[in-house]
Amino acid sequence: MFQAKGYAAVDAQSPLVPFSFERRDPGPEDVQIEILYCGVCHSDLHQARNDWRNSLYPMVPGHEIVGRIVAVGGQVKKFRVGDLAGVGCMVDSCRHCSACNEDLEQYCEEGSTLTYNSRERDSKQLTFGGYSDQIVVDQRFAVKIPASLDLKAVAPLLCAGITTYSPLRHWQVGKGQKVGVIGLGGLGHMGIKFAKAFGARTVMITTSPEKGADALRLGADEVLVSKDKAAMKAHARSFDFLLNTIPNGHDLNPYAALLKRDGTMVLVGALTTLEPALAGASLIGGRRSIAGSAIGGMAETQEMIDFCAEHGIVSDVEMVSIQSVNEAYERLLKNDVKYRFVIDMESLKRTA
Amino acid sequence: MFQAKGYAAVDAQSPLVPFSFERRDPGPEDVQIEILYCGVCHSDLHQARNDWRNSLYPMVPGHEIVGRIVAVGGQVKKFRVGDLAGVGCMVDSCRHCSACNEDLEQYCEEGSTLTYNSRERDSKQLTFGGYSDQIVVDQRFAVKIPASLDLKAVAPLLCAGITTYSPLRHWQVGKGQKVGVIGLGGLGHMGIKFAKAFGARTVMITTSPEKGADALRLGADEVLVSKDKAAMKAHARSFDFLLNTIPNGHDLNPYAALLKRDGTMVLVGALTTLEPALAGASLIGGRRSIAGSAIGGMAETQEMIDFCAEHGIVSDVEMVSIQSVNEAYERLLKNDVKYRFVIDMESLKRTA
Repeated sequence: MFQAKGYAAVDAQSPLVPFSFERRDPGPEDVQIEILYCGVCHSDLHQARNDWRNSLYPMVPGHEIVGRIVAVGGQVKKFRVGDLAGVGCMVDSCRHCSACNEDLEQYCEEGSTLTYNSRERDSKQLTFGGYSDQIVVDQRFAVKIPASLDLKAVAPLLCAGITTYSPLRHWQVGKGQKVGVIGLGGLGHMGIKFAKAFGARTVMITTSPEKGADALRLGADEVLVSKDKAAMKAHARSFDFLLNTIPNGHDLNPYAALLKRDGTMVLVGALTTLEPALAGASLIGGRRSIAGSAIGGMAETQEMIDFCAEHGIVSDVEMVSIQSVNEAYERLLKNDVKYRFVIDMESLKRTA
Repeated sequence: MFQAKGYAAVDAQSPLVPFSFERRDPGPEDVQIEILYCGVCHSDLHQARNDWRNSLYPMVPGHEIVGRIVAVGGQVKKFRVGDLAGVGCMVDSCRHCSACNEDLEQYCEEGSTLTYNSRERDSKQLTFGGYSDQIVVDQRFAVKIPASLDLKAVAPLLCAGITTYSPLRHWQVGKGQKVGVIGLGGLGHMGIKFAKAFGARTVMITTSPEKGADALRLGADEVLVSKDKAAMKAHARSFDFLLNTIPNGHDLNPYAALLKRDGTMVLVGALTTLEPALAGASLIGGRRSIAGSAIGGMAETQEMIDFCAEHGIVSDVEMVSIQSVNEAYERLLKNDVKYRFVIDMESLKRTA
C-alpha cells in the first residue's frame, strides 16, 4: 500500500475536502498512473450529495481520468512507464460472464466495479476515483491515450465521450440519417461531435434557444427548440435516431413523436423516473423504440479514443483547480459550463 | 350503392342496435364479400363506448372479418366469385408513401383508412365494419383464406393474429430464445401459439395463477405469475423478447427487469398512458429496448394466414349471435371469454 492524496466527500452535506488514503501497490496486471487531469461529471455531484441514495463515504469522485504511467506490474504488456493512459467509469468486472466475454464489461452480470463509490471485488475496500494524485488499475481497465490530442480535453472522453459514442455506433448512425441530440451539456456536446463525424445530418434539440449558436459552432446542422410547438410539429416523424442526454426525469412523448417509423430514441442520461408517463401510442403508432445505453466496454472505449485521435475530436473544457471543485459543483448545478470542467491535478500539489 | 344491414352503436351509452346503411357498389378493383363470421375485438368495445374520445357515430364495429366473395370488379385478378376472403383493421391507405411502398400500410404516412370508425379517402363517408352482412373493399385490403382452416376460428387472426405475428417476425423471434407473452387474452393466446410455432421457449406471464393450466394447453412451456415477486426475481434478466399484450396502462418496470441485455419488450395492446412512469435505469442498465407494433401490412397478413394454414393455427373462439353482442361486450369487460367471441353472421338473417 502507498499513500495517495485527493479530495473527498465525507458526507452528503459538506463540501469536498482534502483527503489522504491508501492505494494498493500495483499487482502483476496493474498499472500505476500519475493523474494529470480529471473531468467533473454531473454524476460526481449526484453521488457526492447522495442524490441516488447509494453513496459510500468517504468518497473520492472522478471517472474521467488522464495521466501518465509511473509503474507497471510484471505481467503488463499493454503499457510501459511513461505512456499516457486513461481510466473511465469502471476499474474491474467479473471477466467471465457473457457480457465480459463480449467486451461489454459495463453490463457485467455480476456488476462491474465502478471507479469510485463502489467496492473492490472480493473485498470490502472502497474504490477511490480520480480527484487524486495516483490511481492503480488492472491494465484491462486502462486505455492508451495518443500524445497527439490535447490531454486536458481528452479526460471527458472517458465518460461523456464513450457514453455518446457507444449508442451512436451500436445503432449504426451514419450517412443519410437525420439524428437528433437532445440536451446540450457535457454529453450532448460530444453527441453532436460524434453524430456529425459519423456523417449524419445532426440536429441539436434543446429547450434553450440561446444555446443554438453554440450548437452550430460545435457542428450541428440545425437547431430545434423543443419548447417551440410549431417547430416540433414541423420535425414530427422525421428523425431516424435520437440521442437523449437529458440527465433527469422528463416527458418522453414529445420526443418520441419526432421519430420516423422504426426510429429509435436512446436514453443515456436519465436514470430516474420519466414523468409524465409514456403513452403506448407514442411507440405503437410507428413501430418506434426507446432504449437505454450505459457507457461502453473497454475495447470500445479504446476504439473511441483512437477515432478521436484520427478525427481531432476532444471535449470543450474549462480548467479548474482542485481547490475550486466545490464552486465548480455550484456552477454545474446552474449548467454554467461549456461543456465540462476538468481539474488540473497539478493544483493538488498546492494542498498540503 | 346497395342496402346493407348490421348492428351499430348510435352513441357512447346505448347498446348496439340493428342498423341499415348503404355500401358502395364494387368498383373495378373492389370485391364484395358476404360476411360469414366477425370476431369481437376489445377495441370494438372501446370505440363503441367512445373510450378513446375519437368515436364517429353511427358506428358498425368489427375488423376480424371472414366471408365469401359474391362479386368482383373488372380489374380484380386476385379473387373470383366464391373464394373465401378476410378483411382486417384497414380497408385503404394512401398507397404512395414510403410505408405503403414497403407493404406497411398500417404505418401509412397519410393515415390508413380503418375498417370502421374512420372515413373513406377523399370523402366524408364513414366506414362501416364487419358486424354486417356485406362489405366492399379494394382487393389489396382483402386476404385469401384457405378452405382448410376452421373459418369461424380464422376471423380473429385478422386482428389478434396479425398483431402478435408481426412483431414476433419483425424482431426475429425463434429457436434458442426465451420469449415471454404478457397477458392471456385475445392477443396473448395467439402470441403463445405463434411464439411456440416459431420455436421459442415460450413463457406465459400473467397476473392470474388460475390461467396457468390453460396457458400450458395453448402451448406455453412455462407460466410466470407476475404478482409472485420471488418468481419474477428468479426470471430477472432472462428473456430475449417480451410480447406485451396488456390492453391498458400498467407499470412497465417489473417487466423490463425480466429482459436480458439487449432484450426488447414490444407493446401491442396499451395505447394509453403507462403509469407508474418508466425509470430510465430500467433501460440503461442492460441496453434494453421498449418498442411498439401495430397490426401488420397486407402482405404480411397474407403470410400470417398462409403460415396458420400450414401449421394448423387458429384462434380459440366462442360463437355468439349478433343479437347477443351486447351481452358479449359485458362478458368481455370481465375477461370472461376463451379467447375471442366470434359472431356467426348467419344470425343476422333473423333480424328483420
